[in-house]
Amino acid sequence: MVVREVGLRDGLQSIQTILPTDCKREWIRAAYEAGQREIEVGSFVPPRLLPQLADTADLVRFAKTLPDLFVSVLVPNLKGAERAIAAQADLMLVPLSASHAHSLANLRKTPDEVVAEVARIRAVRDAAGSRTLIEGGIGTAFGCTLQGAVEPAEVLRCMQALLDAGADRVSIADTVGYANPAAVRDLFGQARKIAGEKFCCGHFHDTRGLALANIYAAMETGVARFDATLAGIGGCPYAPGASGNAASEDLVFMLGGMGIATGIDINRLLALRARLAGWLATETLHGTLWRAGLPKTYSTAVPTPLAAHTS
Amino acid sequence: MVVREVGLRDGLQSIQTILPTDCKREWIRAAYEAGQREIEVGSFVPPRLLPQLADTADLVRFAKTLPDLFVSVLVPNLKGAERAIAAQADLMLVPLSASHAHSLANLRKTPDEVVAEVARIRAVRDAAGSRTLIEGGIGTAFGCTLQGAVEPAEVLRCMQALLDAGADRVSIADTVGYANPAAVRDLFGQARKIAGEKFCCGHFHDTRGLALANIYAAMETGVARFDATLAGIGGCPYAPGASGNAASEDLVFMLGGMGIATGIDINRLLALRARLAGWLATETLHGTLWRAGLPKTYSTAVPTPLAAHTS
Repeated sequence: MVVREVGLRDGLQSIQTILPTDCKREWIRAAYEAGQREIEVGSFVPPRLLPQLADTADLVRFAKTLPDLFVSVLVPNLKGAERAIAAQADLMLVPLSASHAHSLANLRKTPDEVVAEVARIRAVRDAAGSRTLIEGGIGTAFGCTLQGAVEPAEVLRCMQALLDAGADRVSIADTVGYANPAAVRDLFGQARKIAGEKFCCGHFHDTRGLALANIYAAMETGVARFDATLAGIGGCPYAPGASGNAASEDLVFMLGGMGIATGIDINRLLALRARLAGWLATETLHGTLWRAGLPKTYSTAVPTPLAAHTS
Repeated sequence: MVVREVGLRDGLQSIQTILPTDCKREWIRAAYEAGQREIEVGSFVPPRLLPQLADTADLVRFAKTLPDLFVSVLVPNLKGAERAIAAQADLMLVPLSASHAHSLANLRKTPDEVVAEVARIRAVRDAAGSRTLIEGGIGTAFGCTLQGAVEPAEVLRCMQALLDAGADRVSIADTVGYANPAAVRDLFGQARKIAGEKFCCGHFHDTRGLALANIYAAMETGVARFDATLAGIGGCPYAPGASGNAASEDLVFMLGGMGIATGIDINRLLALRARLAGWLATETLHGTLWRAGLPKTYSTAVPTPLAAHTS
């Protein structure tokens, strides 16, 4: 099971603190040393929109020096994709919002316009002979705060369209914590039928405390990669103090307890969390394991890091 | 699905505040009006040990005035059981700790001595012509902070012994938050095979954030009743600030989102939580829904309260 660390992107874009590039490098290195092999290091968005992620190209360059680290970035459009290709990122995640209202408000595009952009990205990527994979990430898949309900059929239509447009992979995100285990089981089960192994990742926010239950439900459909952020940073700007993403350390703990290999050393991850808590001293952090500590019975044998996933 | 409120017992016994009897009565009434039909109102332990629960007999008397409310108490021994029978509680939960070390430290009895006490309680109950049900509650079923590992085989042995001794029902508790969904699925699945419908309830602490994931895993084995405490009060005295029980409001929210009827009005429950937060202003409360609020898409149609479970 792969726990993809997205704290450097989805976490840091949602908080006030601008983490210095040196700290981000330390974070990436320590996460790598803890055994994490997939890290989303930033986003190729215009720096005026997200100044806290302006060092993304630097971070890709640094992360690519770590053997077998699979380096992801988010790209909102073709321009971002060109930067990701130039930086030789291993994967670029193109977000699509299944909620039309959210899509127009956040991306200023309809879902179908995002699909068309993915087709252009694919053409440019192939023409450049680049090996940067394209992941279509379908957000607000369980509803959104603007539009309310989002139909599963629309999520699946977008998924098929992304694949047809040339996305190498697709993933589903519960952007605002509206999902529940039954909805996850249903939607993820259908998504697996459409996309098979190309449906590669689930992304769950813990806004209402269900992230880990939702991940467990998703695992039962065969999905084997989940996004998470250290200390659960991220969260919804519209719900001050609400929990953010699934906390990486809590997820690694759950999986380890279940006997599922992640290749990640939980004690090193907890030590890194403590450093992050120092860097983000003015932010609200989340997660529960750091406070309670590991159970006496927990096996902390250092596991072998998983091989990087490149397909 | 029954959400059994145990905050008045498992919650209040673990915190500093001594809640006045009037507040407890208000809590019981408001929980009842929100649709809760099973409430553990206290514990028949010596008042010098738990002065905060000294009003249990009063609370049973009050709770029994509410039509169709199924009123539970905890009893540690025969003496407590005699009080529960005299008070005409609907159910008395006799705790057994599957961890021998925890059993000796907390109950001053071995598990087998607790089983023998259950046999005595059964004899006295039957001789009195009482209809108070006996539930054997097996705690530290996934390990404990003193002993470490607890073998599933020992949990199941205790379960069979409790049934043989005359317990009407049995339940399993993760007293210290050591469980994970895989362990729950395995143990609960085996327990169902041994006890069938008599295995009636799961009790999960959220010490390490997995209570709701564990409950979802347990639901898949067919168990249809879970303990929870409003605002997640309870928690482990050895892990200051750590989360307590599964929060009733978060659990009701999860089940409602999944389309599973609990008979509980989530808005009334959240309103009650706000009152409880006032009563317990100096305590650390838990849960996530109260902060984020309900999703825009959430159905808050007031459901019919479930009929009381008496078998």
